[in-house]
Amino acid sequence: MKAVRLAGYDSRPTVEDVPEPGIGAPLDVLVEIGGAGLCRTDLHIVEGQWAEKSGVSLPYTIGHENAGWVRAVGSAVSNVAPGDPVILHPLVTCGLCRACRAGDDVHCANSAFPGIDTDGGMAELLRTNARSVVRLDDGLHPADVAALADAGLTAYHAVRKAVPLLYPGTQVVVIGAGGLGHIGVQCLAALVPAEIIVVDRAPEALELARSYGATHTVVADGTQVAAVRELTHGAGAHVVLDFVGEHGTEAEGVAMLRRAGSYFVIGYGGAVNIPTIDIISSEINVIGNLVGSYNDLAELMTLAAQDKVSLHTKTYPLTSVNEAMDDLDSGRLRGRGILVP
Amino acid sequence: MKAVRLAGYDSRPTVEDVPEPGIGAPLDVLVEIGGAGLCRTDLHIVEGQWAEKSGVSLPYTIGHENAGWVRAVGSAVSNVAPGDPVILHPLVTCGLCRACRAGDDVHCANSAFPGIDTDGGMAELLRTNARSVVRLDDGLHPADVAALADAGLTAYHAVRKAVPLLYPGTQVVVIGAGGLGHIGVQCLAALVPAEIIVVDRAPEALELARSYGATHTVVADGTQVAAVRELTHGAGAHVVLDFVGEHGTEAEGVAMLRRAGSYFVIGYGGAVNIPTIDIISSEINVIGNLVGSYNDLAELMTLAAQDKVSLHTKTYPLTSVNEAMDDLDSGRLRGRGILVP
Amino acid sequence: MKAVRLAGYDSRPTVEDVPEPGIGAPLDVLVEIGGAGLCRTDLHIVEGQWAEKSGVSLPYTIGHENAGWVRAVGSAVSNVAPGDPVILHPLVTCGLCRACRAGDDVHCANSAFPGIDTDGGMAELLRTNARSVVRLDDGLHPADVAALADAGLTAYHAVRKAVPLLYPGTQVVVIGAGGLGHIGVQCLAALVPAEIIVVDRAPEALELARSYGATHTVVADGTQVAAVRELTHGAGAHVVLDFVGEHGTEAEGVAMLRRAGSYFVIGYGGAVNIPTIDIISSEINVIGNLVGSYNDLAELMTLAAQDKVSLHTKTYPLTSVNEAMDDLDSGRLRGRGILVP
Amino acid sequence: MKAVRLAGYDSRPTVEDVPEPGIGAPLDVLVEIGGAGLCRTDLHIVEGQWAEKSGVSLPYTIGHENAGWVRAVGSAVSNVAPGDPVILHPLVTCGLCRACRAGDDVHCANSAFPGIDTDGGMAELLRTNARSVVRLDDGLHPADVAALADAGLTAYHAVRKAVPLLYPGTQVVVIGAGGLGHIGVQCLAALVPAEIIVVDRAPEALELARSYGATHTVVADGTQVAAVRELTHGAGAHVVLDFVGEHGTEAEGVAMLRRAGSYFVIGYGGAVNIPTIDIISSEINVIGNLVGSYNDLAELMTLAAQDKVSLHTKTYPLTSVNEAMDDLDSGRLRGRGILVP
Repeated sequence: MKAVRLAGYDSRPTVEDVPEPGIGAPLDVLVEIGGAGLCRTDLHIVEGQWAEKSGVSLPYTIGHENAGWVRAVGSAVSNVAPGDPVILHPLVTCGLCRACRAGDDVHCANSAFPGIDTDGGMAELLRTNARSVVRLDDGLHPADVAALADAGLTAYHAVRKAVPLLYPGTQVVVIGAGGLGHIGVQCLAALVPAEIIVVDRAPEALELARSYGATHTVVADGTQVAAVRELTHGAGAHVVLDFVGEHGTEAEGVAMLRRAGSYFVIGYGGAVNIPTIDIISSEINVIGNLVGSYNDLAELMTLAAQDKVSLHTKTYPLTSVNEAMDDLDSGRLRGRGILVP
Repeated sequence: MKAVRLAGYDSRPTVEDVPEPGIGAPLDVLVEIGGAGLCRTDLHIVEGQWAEKSGVSLPYTIGHENAGWVRAVGSAVSNVAPGDPVILHPLVTCGLCRACRAGDDVHCANSAFPGIDTDGGMAELLRTNARSVVRLDDGLHPADVAALADAGLTAYHAVRKAVPLLYPGTQVVVIGAGGLGHIGVQCLAALVPAEIIVVDRAPEALELARSYGATHTVVADGTQVAAVRELTHGAGAHVVLDFVGEHGTEAEGVAMLRRAGSYFVIGYGGAVNIPTIDIISSEINVIGNLVGSYNDLAELMTLAAQDKVSLHTKTYPLTSVNEAMDDLDSGRLRGRGILVP
Repeated sequence: MKAVRLAGYDSRPTVEDVPEPGIGAPLDVLVEIGGAGLCRTDLHIVEGQWAEKSGVSLPYTIGHENAGWVRAVGSAVSNVAPGDPVILHPLVTCGLCRACRAGDDVHCANSAFPGIDTDGGMAELLRTNARSVVRLDDGLHPADVAALADAGLTAYHAVRKAVPLLYPGTQVVVIGAGGLGHIGVQCLAALVPAEIIVVDRAPEALELARSYGATHTVVADGTQVAAVRELTHGAGAHVVLDFVGEHGTEAEGVAMLRRAGSYFVIGYGGAVNIPTIDIISSEINVIGNLVGSYNDLAELMTLAAQDKVSLHTKTYPLTSVNEAMDDLDSGRLRGRGILVP
Repeated sequence: MKAVRLAGYDSRPTVEDVPEPGIGAPLDVLVEIGGAGLCRTDLHIVEGQWAEKSGVSLPYTIGHENAGWVRAVGSAVSNVAPGDPVILHPLVTCGLCRACRAGDDVHCANSAFPGIDTDGGMAELLRTNARSVVRLDDGLHPADVAALADAGLTAYHAVRKAVPLLYPGTQVVVIGAGGLGHIGVQCLAALVPAEIIVVDRAPEALELARSYGATHTVVADGTQVAAVRELTHGAGAHVVLDFVGEHGTEAEGVAMLRRAGSYFVIGYGGAVNIPTIDIISSEINVIGNLVGSYNDLAELMTLAAQDKVSLHTKTYPLTSVNEAMDDLDSGRLRGRGILVP
């Protein structure tokens, strides 16, 4: 079968013919890929930024936002059957550790991460296991939702954790209305009655955010902290979701908080640096956010099936992977790029 | 009456004769002070560190950890009567804002802070209001518990917030077993079934901690992060309560966390500085902690009445305030200093 | 001033001239009534059903769903000023007990209930206190929202408690889409992403419910339990909100639950009767619901100001109180009756 | 191997020679039984009370409280190895449904219940799967803890759910200090700082409860509701854990509650019957409790390893199953009966 293979960190990935994976273990599920999302992390992988962290042996197949149809299942698989449309949770988890049993499968003690530390989904077939596959509603097409598997799931997870903090009369700030942030805005609109204030440098991103349910939008032109404080009547916001996490949004996000408020870190690249006296005197929290759980992904697929969350996508044939990467890298790509085998 | 007055930030406080306060507003409560705790913050006030933050007009009476007996009450006071032994919540709150109504009176929109921004309790009498007074169990003496009003309440509040995270099989680290920390250890032993690991530089503080229920103690000799990781089987602790918050404990505390763990900031003076990628990849939280609520203080008094929390104290007559401050400043004072009028 | 007075349980209320109340205590607030909601409880009061429970001395003024404008305030009132439009929380609470401080002011240890156990709001003026008045958004008119003070607040409170149970993919059943229920449907649509299944005997009530956001409606014709089980794919609903609580809905509501589901009792008149083996084998919960807290009411007013919750009302002059009561009693009254002085 | 077989509901179980089970599926675990707890449910099974509910085909092996040592494991088992001492969660669960992934494996959509609907542990060997086995601390012996697998786990689960309600100053009532209740008292003492009031008819059970940490004990002689109200200063208890659930404790337990209190149903046999007006006017809750989750069992084993929970047991050889049952039935058995192969 065809697969996007990375042979070295000094070279671009290439499309190669590799042997098809098969069913090995009894919980294995073999998926015909319908769409594999292209993510900025893929660029970083090719550049070698993840070499040490992942420890993956080259060559291998990239692609960690995957959806498709089940082709075959192992003997112990009971939750999906061949032909089912599915989206894949990014992690293949054990189901036996405390975290897996407690709804925190993202912190599974024995997980694999296809596309990062083992063969991923930019290929005709991907082998995963029964704990990773969420059956899709018949109205959803794998290529349309693939990018929700990781980027969307991360945004949903952060919003889900903020739900108890966001009752009527509260305000939530979204910093960055790009790939993750514009899904975050849709999730907020679906889940909470709070006012949603969206901050971004790009006026067109803000316009899109308004169409998705933003109550207020703020252009990040250097006055954004003051603007948020004004929109919150001087008090600051109850929650700030920072989908950027670098280039100064870390300090700005904290400065937008009200007393006892919570700053959610989602994007990364920078650093949070706060004097302890400021943390205690206003009793604020800094909340880390990783990708969501399997159950989070199932909930997000419910929202997608109900048309409450949608994605702008542009599809490319698998063989155009480098063109898609160039489009992403150069900023030419609007919406998420999806590779279709 | 006699009161410890601060006339200028360049001079020591002095004991002066001042007019007695009286009942003014209908919710006022006049308290004969039985004991006023001396706190490191009092040293900082005298040095002028709080001048700008508090905006208090000099001269004024210091003392923000107060307990005593009710002498008189305003016409609308229904919860205490003259003669009742009471401890005073550090804040005088409004009872009308959302925070006061939601159990977050510490974030009251209209509060005063006797001893910080208005006359405090190092005096024979203090005027407060009905929302601040917790009636003491008859078995408790004001001078014995006064220091729980602020230091103890802060420790209790942090522990109380950590309760849902600390089920059987979890581990909690206490950094700093001094004034607040040794109360924190007692509160943990009373409230949670977790293993308690206490880290301090002073072996005698660790010995005291063991007598209060610490499961393990670690001398902070530079190897404390490694020691905690070993005691937690390499995984790190579920919760770290940092009662120091400076001199490097900020980074060490974070380094002691397990995945999805929470670092509670209680002490202050330093800064938390964490790359956002580390926050998200391990999905950790940084939790700010201020003093506790009125209900927290009532709960803490229940623990004190049940002999589950106690304090080492040394009493001084009010007129020896400067001797007490010198003892505190020089490290000669073991336990909390209590000024008794 | 004019007031609707009840002189005896054997006779109808009459409109009398009574002395105007004045400001007594420092937290008192005097309100010019803009609208007083008429509630089925008022009929029960007149019939004497509440005589023993309330212990009120006759004659007195009824009316427990009140809104209007502040005319005067006591010396200690800081949260409203004369001229402010306000809605009144049904209870006058103390602000000093643990419940008041913990957000459970409905369980205040020292509350009064105007219109039930002391003079109410079917009058030109009502005296309440500062802890009861929620300032209205300038866009809201007292007569339009008065009935949210009690009926609406009860519905909101139950929905608010159910929020953590109602994530995407869950189902909630509303039994009874009448006075309280149709507000409950609006609150659900505003607060949760669950599917909303509404059960009522009246097709026109169901049509209204659909316009407010019901996902499915079920005519209560004897097959409603089966219908709900079918709509929930045989599993039953996660939450059932029973706004009727009599005539068999108690058993039907429980029969509509899925394993680990929760049956919320809001309406009353009947009894819950469940074998303990059924409670434990499916691990279900029965959740009591009283009126909401002050903060709940403030949140509900936010929803009203955002046009997310509205009421059908019919206004009557105060002097037509008996006509209004007859209309309510005979079923002629569509929406809530509001008495306007 | 030898096994306790039930051949008909009209006859006593007999010890038979049956073929040894083997490893079939890749997640299978074969356990040499070290002890199988005898439970009142076993008597009910023999009497045929569970015939319809379980739908099991006779003959089969009973025994649903099991612990022992791993003899063999399937190819996909990673969490235990041959020789490991283990206790068995009562359910064999799928690990794939939402409940299993969310920490509610007790509500697994595809579970089996050895000893109830499939072959159980009163035998030399039991086949279960990897999701059911909790590795024991080396200091714990299977026969000593076996009865914690179901009875103990049920008590722990109820207590664990009550933790957020039981802060310092609260009161919890335990009705019934027998097999489950005396474990419940130990779990309460380990997990919460509340006052524990234990109600039982047997003075010796109350004496045992005091040794386990009960603050007060009340003889159930007809005055127990009044006694509890007096011990709670007239207000009632915050939580009532009813380990009996029949013979009138259902009404008594509800009558012991304070406003907004919660009545936990654990024992069964009777019925809860409460007018809806009483449920709403005091806003009480009725909380169902089934056996705990796998993670609950792991936590309970931590408490057992820390000597915070222990059981009185009497061991019988497997061949004396009917003698043990007679002892249990006649009330001669003190503590839990444990069958040892």
